[in-house]
Amino acid sequence: MRRLFVVIAVLFIICINGIAQEKKLSLEDAVLRQRGFLAPKNLPGLQWMNEKELLSIMSDDWTSIQKIDLKLNKSLLLTLEEINNALETEMKSVPYPDWKNGSSFYFNFKNNYYLFNLNEKSGRLISTLPEDAENIDIHKVSGRIAYTRGKNLFMSDNLKHVKISKIDEQTEVVCGQSIARSEFGITKGTFWSPSANLLAFYQKNESEVANYPLLDINVTPGQLNSIKYPMAGQKSESAQVGIFNPKKGRTVYLKTEGEKDQYLTNLAWDPSEKFVYVVVVNRNQNHIRFNKYSAEDGSFVKTLFEEKHPKYVEPEHPAWFLPNNPEQFIWMSERDGFMHLYMYRNDGTLLLQLSSGNWVVESILGMDASGENVIVSGTDSSGLDLHAYSINLKTAALKNLTVKPGYHNLSLHPDGSLLIDNYSNLSTPRVIRIIDTKSGEEKSELLRSDNPLKEYKIGNVELHQLKADNGTTLHARLIKPSDFDASKKYPVLVYVYGGPHAQMITNSWLAASQLWMQYQAEKGYLVFTLDNRGSKSRGFEFENVIHRQLGTVEMQDQLKGVEWLKSQTFVDSSKMAIHGWSFGGFMTISMMLRNPGIFRAAVAGGPVTDWKYYEAMYGERYMDRPDENPKGYNNSRLANYVKNLQGDLMIIHGTSDDVVLEQHSLSLVKAFVENGILVDYFPYPMHKHNVLGKDRVHLMRKILTYIDDKLK
Amino acid sequence: MRRLFVVIAVLFIICINGIAQEKKLSLEDAVLRQRGFLAPKNLPGLQWMNEKELLSIMSDDWTSIQKIDLKLNKSLLLTLEEINNALETEMKSVPYPDWKNGSSFYFNFKNNYYLFNLNEKSGRLISTLPEDAENIDIHKVSGRIAYTRGKNLFMSDNLKHVKISKIDEQTEVVCGQSIARSEFGITKGTFWSPSANLLAFYQKNESEVANYPLLDINVTPGQLNSIKYPMAGQKSESAQVGIFNPKKGRTVYLKTEGEKDQYLTNLAWDPSEKFVYVVVVNRNQNHIRFNKYSAEDGSFVKTLFEEKHPKYVEPEHPAWFLPNNPEQFIWMSERDGFMHLYMYRNDGTLLLQLSSGNWVVESILGMDASGENVIVSGTDSSGLDLHAYSINLKTAALKNLTVKPGYHNLSLHPDGSLLIDNYSNLSTPRVIRIIDTKSGEEKSELLRSDNPLKEYKIGNVELHQLKADNGTTLHARLIKPSDFDASKKYPVLVYVYGGPHAQMITNSWLAASQLWMQYQAEKGYLVFTLDNRGSKSRGFEFENVIHRQLGTVEMQDQLKGVEWLKSQTFVDSSKMAIHGWSFGGFMTISMMLRNPGIFRAAVAGGPVTDWKYYEAMYGERYMDRPDENPKGYNNSRLANYVKNLQGDLMIIHGTSDDVVLEQHSLSLVKAFVENGILVDYFPYPMHKHNVLGKDRVHLMRKILTYIDDKLK
Repeated sequence: MRRLFVVIAVLFIICINGIAQEKKLSLEDAVLRQRGFLAPKNLPGLQWMNEKELLSIMSDDWTSIQKIDLKLNKSLLLTLEEINNALETEMKSVPYPDWKNGSSFYFNFKNNYYLFNLNEKSGRLISTLPEDAENIDIHKVSGRIAYTRGKNLFMSDNLKHVKISKIDEQTEVVCGQSIARSEFGITKGTFWSPSANLLAFYQKNESEVANYPLLDINVTPGQLNSIKYPMAGQKSESAQVGIFNPKKGRTVYLKTEGEKDQYLTNLAWDPSEKFVYVVVVNRNQNHIRFNKYSAEDGSFVKTLFEEKHPKYVEPEHPAWFLPNNPEQFIWMSERDGFMHLYMYRNDGTLLLQLSSGNWVVESILGMDASGENVIVSGTDSSGLDLHAYSINLKTAALKNLTVKPGYHNLSLHPDGSLLIDNYSNLSTPRVIRIIDTKSGEEKSELLRSDNPLKEYKIGNVELHQLKADNGTTLHARLIKPSDFDASKKYPVLVYVYGGPHAQMITNSWLAASQLWMQYQAEKGYLVFTLDNRGSKSRGFEFENVIHRQLGTVEMQDQLKGVEWLKSQTFVDSSKMAIHGWSFGGFMTISMMLRNPGIFRAAVAGGPVTDWKYYEAMYGERYMDRPDENPKGYNNSRLANYVKNLQGDLMIIHGTSDDVVLEQHSLSLVKAFVENGILVDYFPYPMHKHNVLGKDRVHLMRKILTYIDDKLK
Repeated sequence: MRRLFVVIAVLFIICINGIAQEKKLSLEDAVLRQRGFLAPKNLPGLQWMNEKELLSIMSDDWTSIQKIDLKLNKSLLLTLEEINNALETEMKSVPYPDWKNGSSFYFNFKNNYYLFNLNEKSGRLISTLPEDAENIDIHKVSGRIAYTRGKNLFMSDNLKHVKISKIDEQTEVVCGQSIARSEFGITKGTFWSPSANLLAFYQKNESEVANYPLLDINVTPGQLNSIKYPMAGQKSESAQVGIFNPKKGRTVYLKTEGEKDQYLTNLAWDPSEKFVYVVVVNRNQNHIRFNKYSAEDGSFVKTLFEEKHPKYVEPEHPAWFLPNNPEQFIWMSERDGFMHLYMYRNDGTLLLQLSSGNWVVESILGMDASGENVIVSGTDSSGLDLHAYSINLKTAALKNLTVKPGYHNLSLHPDGSLLIDNYSNLSTPRVIRIIDTKSGEEKSELLRSDNPLKEYKIGNVELHQLKADNGTTLHARLIKPSDFDASKKYPVLVYVYGGPHAQMITNSWLAASQLWMQYQAEKGYLVFTLDNRGSKSRGFEFENVIHRQLGTVEMQDQLKGVEWLKSQTFVDSSKMAIHGWSFGGFMTISMMLRNPGIFRAAVAGGPVTDWKYYEAMYGERYMDRPDENPKGYNNSRLANYVKNLQGDLMIIHGTSDDVVLEQHSLSLVKAFVENGILVDYFPYPMHKHNVLGKDRVHLMRKILTYIDDKLK
């Protein structure tokens, strides 16, 4: 096989050195204030009102809601005093309005839910939920609210409360909550029909799912916090979809035949409210059926289409029905190798592939004002940019609405005419502007942020392109100290993630880096990151090459990064360290143990160490079941390589991590101990999969101090 | 108050440097072979046979049992082949005989229990216990065996099995096992009456005791291992004593009125088998009643006597009835300030205080051959030696039978005439001899061991006497490297325990030090230990000064040790480290946080960090309940002092520790994190309160490497 040499192309070199670069970034500010005063300026709470060409924003101190038009005329809508007086509440800041229309909005204060009318300066209490209400789901037109308490589902309608499910809290059935550990794009458990005449909901039976014990040390004596955790290859949950009819007070369940542990995903209502669509994924995750069911009696109507793939199929976006043509919907699929749009008729007829090519649709934003085009967000062909595109529903003609290079966060006006385009790129901290969805023309620039770091000593953030063994382009990011001197040699910290559904590098402000990297660079380091194959925004094949062999190809690509670093004259390759969290923790330890001798120090946080301990939904998608792929599981099992350790490794884990269980790191530590090999560990008591809040400063200090010490 | 200056007296300086001191002690050998080939020579399995002047020992390879007389004549008793042939077993080594008399012994192989006859070279199966049998208790005369399965109690008699208790395994009642977390000298749950006509047993109801969750990571998925753990001030277990009559197949329960959570301790049978004595300790542990109950119907007969103390009373030794006068018994009590013997009549009349003075009786070994004297083991007045004493039952005259200074391990011949005296002292690795209990005269020297370390480079072990603030003598031990040069300056590692019921320093081989200390000394350290007030063998007041203020006086005394070290010209007081485990872990962290600036590095293993997390029985004895002593609990709570940390601290904990729960160290780590202070941690997965077995090498390497690194 022809081995392609690594080709290096410096894409951008951005010198964000301003004039008065004197302030030293503290670790505390780097960790806690990246989205605070160190972030580019923003317009707080900016959103479309449900009214032509009008937006609302919050005053900087959140004591009033203001209106703004495209000519940047600002006017006061409502003050905190007015709303507190009207409702006899004691709010400390104005609530974030959920606009029903241009003159009224929903909001809640504690457990009270209101509809507030701007013209009358008065609000109507639409519901008071119990204190323990969770998973609250408001239907904006009707004001109906679905919510859960414990394992049961409830709804409120005009201050009346109805208990929908009748589940004994002692059983292991849960109603109205997210299922499948929120994989397959599932984020919630309730789905109002378009006019809220019906409520679809998930119900899961977890009685066969193993309990995993967590320890709560905040009480005396320490107590058991038992969670349900279906590991790869183990018995899993079994899901149902119920349809509750509030008028009849009756629930029917969809007749979703098939394996008990199949996944019921991407639930969508037919605009007629007569049907519900569920994408049924088999446990093997290599075959999906797009099924239509009767919302009246739950009966199965038809499989509209199926998708199969020898590796896996991963549907994540429910069918999107055309507002102006309720018999047609758009389906997002990776079937041609990239996430693209397919227009279907509701009988299952494929009408048209709407998008194609080497780029990835991220989400559907809505229709444009003409009703002839769908507006989507999607990457460019490099995977670094995110843009708004208009796609013609008849011709599939594609138009980029946001030509300026960068990462565009978008919000479509309800009437489809305008977009809020909030974007940044390596040289632009933030611009907020309004663009026309027809022409892409800029109607108004609302904000252009200054460099929020201009007073700080901060070095360069560079993007580079490297080539994988097979010629695939890989993006890399290099952060240098402000006083970088190419004639010197610098130690390197490699930060890695490496897993699917994530991308560390984009063409956005600071290239999506975290400010602790700049902090560390100022200590005299180079901080390097590479998005290996397996990561996001580069298409299905780029991702699915990891199938059944997690870690393998990812490492090959990371080694290309290492090779590149070592070839730089300014790199001290005797002083390299690596750090990553979660999948990045798995990668960090894999790099240390399977490629020993490269890194002198490593810190792995919340790492997967053996895929058999990871959850079924994600784990089996990429690795199949342990009994189907013993070689793959064994090759990636880190305990098999403990004897290879060279240099220092610290493992960090939150003791209440319910995503990557502490069993991962403890079992690896046990293997180190049994083999007489020294390793370091640090637990973050009561922290979950990430160490968040103020303790994150401690975490980063722990990590970076460790690396400093070990590279000394 | 007059402050006495520290007075230093070098008691002994032992140079164990031999001739060919060349071998370097490895850490692995130091940790794993201190009781193996690095131990002084021994006589394997030496014990009295139940026959005049005869002892049995095992051959070095355990393939035969041999007989030895006082003239050191050895003869073969039984070979492995003979016993395997006789019983059709496949034992790999001869069993350790439990002599019934000079010609027969009990032993077990797996679950089969035999009585073997030497003359006939044949054995009789007396019971086959189920595989899950635990807490096995054989009565030697009758051959009856009590045992437990799950929560129930059983007995076997001539191959017949009887289920004594009828406890539903789902309930939280446990029968036939040790209670009160094995405090108060309780080590088992069954007590055969002298002729095995009755079986007394403990039963405990733990339904009110909190569950504490441990995680078993050895299975996939990780599982809950829930234990019962009564913390100080929390609801505790409730105990009963049952008396089972095998003939009648009936159980009666003693009518032990009083608090539900009182402690039923020191159970003893009346020689008549008609009565049972139980020492009832109130939950406050400051008042005990020595109660007599009818074994026939369980009725309360009489309180023979009571003891009270404003701090605590801690009975640990059941009444010992005189074999030749079954109406009298000896009671061991600290009522006069030291553990001494008191002779009572079984109606409660105190007849005579048998021993007194500033020394401590350790245990009653038995009667001498004349029946006029009781033989005990006890300390000398320094607390460093352990001797055999003969005490006249009429006159209380005391005679030391083992005059040679040192620590004497003793075994009395069943007829009371002779003692095996297995002793060592600082200059004597081991001597085994036979002495006469009448005269103390040596009848025979069976063994005199050479220095097992003579080929190794090992430094001096010195004992020193220091003075506490109040003038109390404190023993200290200093270990130096073999090439010690007083003109140089050495770093110091202080090893500390400091809690009650333990003593780190005795006048025994190596002064009871562990060989890893010699290993560390050879790296150029001084290894220092001091037994502070609170520790064992120095009397009740020396111990109980810690009451309600654990850590306080102990630290004052440890600081005397530090002061002394700093005053030595050969000590580099800028390089001091401290290490301890359990109570010693508590002491280590207390020293670091409450006396910051002394130690640059510390390693605390399995530490108590807050006495409210420790068990009720031990914890309330010394600290009272948290609501009774909030100040004492607060003062000793280590999380209160995290901000004081100077230098490096590593905390180590076994993740399955069921003595000092991991909640201790995790809650302290949480306090460090919340205060933004860096600290180190290492978990030993699935290890309990001590890291035992081969992993102990990893542990000591982890600890000592940490100290080396941090003192660099």
